[in-house]
Amino acid sequence: MTAVQAFAAHEAGGNWEPFEYELPELGDQEVEVEVLSCGICHSDLSMLDNEWKITRYPFVGGHEIIGRVASVGANVPSLKTGDIVGVGWNARSCMCCDQCISGNQNLCPQVEGTITHQHGGFADRVRCHWSWALPIPAELDARTSGPLLCGGITVFSPLVEYGISPLARVAVLGIGGLGHLALQFCRAWGCEVTAISRGRDIEPEARQLGAHDFLATDQTDELEAAAGRFDLILNTTNADLDWDRYIAALASKGRLHTVGAAAKVSASVFPMIIGQKSFSSSPTGNVIHMRQMLNFASRHGIRPMVESFPFAEINQAFDRLRNGSARFRVVLQAS
Amino acid sequence: MTAVQAFAAHEAGGNWEPFEYELPELGDQEVEVEVLSCGICHSDLSMLDNEWKITRYPFVGGHEIIGRVASVGANVPSLKTGDIVGVGWNARSCMCCDQCISGNQNLCPQVEGTITHQHGGFADRVRCHWSWALPIPAELDARTSGPLLCGGITVFSPLVEYGISPLARVAVLGIGGLGHLALQFCRAWGCEVTAISRGRDIEPEARQLGAHDFLATDQTDELEAAAGRFDLILNTTNADLDWDRYIAALASKGRLHTVGAAAKVSASVFPMIIGQKSFSSSPTGNVIHMRQMLNFASRHGIRPMVESFPFAEINQAFDRLRNGSARFRVVLQAS
Repeated sequence: MTAVQAFAAHEAGGNWEPFEYELPELGDQEVEVEVLSCGICHSDLSMLDNEWKITRYPFVGGHEIIGRVASVGANVPSLKTGDIVGVGWNARSCMCCDQCISGNQNLCPQVEGTITHQHGGFADRVRCHWSWALPIPAELDARTSGPLLCGGITVFSPLVEYGISPLARVAVLGIGGLGHLALQFCRAWGCEVTAISRGRDIEPEARQLGAHDFLATDQTDELEAAAGRFDLILNTTNADLDWDRYIAALASKGRLHTVGAAAKVSASVFPMIIGQKSFSSSPTGNVIHMRQMLNFASRHGIRPMVESFPFAEINQAFDRLRNGSARFRVVLQAS
Repeated sequence: MTAVQAFAAHEAGGNWEPFEYELPELGDQEVEVEVLSCGICHSDLSMLDNEWKITRYPFVGGHEIIGRVASVGANVPSLKTGDIVGVGWNARSCMCCDQCISGNQNLCPQVEGTITHQHGGFADRVRCHWSWALPIPAELDARTSGPLLCGGITVFSPLVEYGISPLARVAVLGIGGLGHLALQFCRAWGCEVTAISRGRDIEPEARQLGAHDFLATDQTDELEAAAGRFDLILNTTNADLDWDRYIAALASKGRLHTVGAAAKVSASVFPMIIGQKSFSSSPTGNVIHMRQMLNFASRHGIRPMVESFPFAEINQAFDRLRNGSARFRVVLQAS
């Protein structure tokens, strides 16, 4: 038995409070990770607030974890005590279904989430299947790289999944926790990168992060002027968009890809037919894409821009996320 | 000058009446085709009724044309008088823009339609750029193959564009003019093919055309029972669907592709994210895909099932289309 010191919420929207729980003997395919830092993702907030009606309390969030392997199960093939690893949205998958066996472990029907099927990384320890404990390249900072494990892979995976070419004109919609990483990935991917946000206040940071161009959508016609321009619009917001405006900004064969969980998409079909356009969505990424993402981030110097809080100040950190002013990701640090 | 004997409608929803018009001297990249037969596509009806608000009267429809090359312009590289060719939705494109030069002539911003930018194939003659006059393989019947030129390419093109594998489980939604060709193409493509229709009355024909399985959607839960099953659902209807029902029937990474022009698509985003699903649309096809489609149809014995009317009975033929009972395509025949 291992006693874990965590922070848990006991009701929807509740405060985080110190919470201790016990873990059983380590499974033979499992690793136990001593948490060094943990990013706060918007989905931690959605889960805290029980927005998706799947939260079980006491709830321990946290799935942008960087940590040190504390112990490994008897049959773990590739990790050893002391290795620095990251753990993201998923903690384990069955490893034998068609999806797992073809490398799409994130689409496994039995996939288990780090905060949906167990207690997460707002804690001193967390466990996962060895495959979902991703070795962190030495060049990445263990204190600030946690956001790559969920926010990062979520925006990186579509570039691989849909074979986005460095020739593509890509727009990143929403410059926040995910968007600020998307700008860096798309720039390093070789694309022509445009940042799209409501107002212009974030333009300097967006350009610094890799945007060649910037469009403000509120009270301007800049989006309309970009009609037919983008091969990919990567929507990182969960806003209820005027989807037709964005589909109009797509080039022929263009893709509006959303990783933000708006409730509904609604669009006129005729312009999509004429321009052979598509709308698609995706969740985080599979294991090989996570490995590739971490190596790509390391090689290209892609770094989350974060605001750090000690774990003891988790409630203040969530306030910062809730009011939307964090630039760009809040990360909790172990002492 | 060439005098053309055609049938034209003079107002929205009007009857077809004999109509003569003059064509100027043949352009040097153009071919003039003597019409042998012409299928009637649902979009001829939409144009007749001015559903898309772009019809100019007098309106001469007809864009599923098979004919004999009657004359060729001075600089036509690859056709000669007497060749049997087909002409579909598009009659010409600029041949120099980025889309044309990359082979996507159907997405050319200046593309000109056979019935939208000129008078179409309900006539004894029609003209087009040489590239859009497709040589018809000798094995295909000139009297019945017209529907391949629009209906056929519209359902064939997505198989190529999206790299559909013979391993895919494909469902064809709507077994009519397009759907009955889609079943044949998908079966010959090597896929596992399911036909989806409202009722069961069309099941025998659907199975004969290549469907391995059949789902009826009205007053059954067969679609719900197929949850997570299809890699591709090819929607050939223009009905206002309950889109979420069909997205639920997609496997992970599945695609709901519509070639039918419903007004709007509206779907819940969360299931699309979780299953990495997409919604897409496309118009007819480009020149190389039309060539490939005709050769593929020839090689696999894919044949439109048609009801034939002489050109003089065009109004009766349209009645047959309007009441939706044609199995599966109505084709007008020159005498």
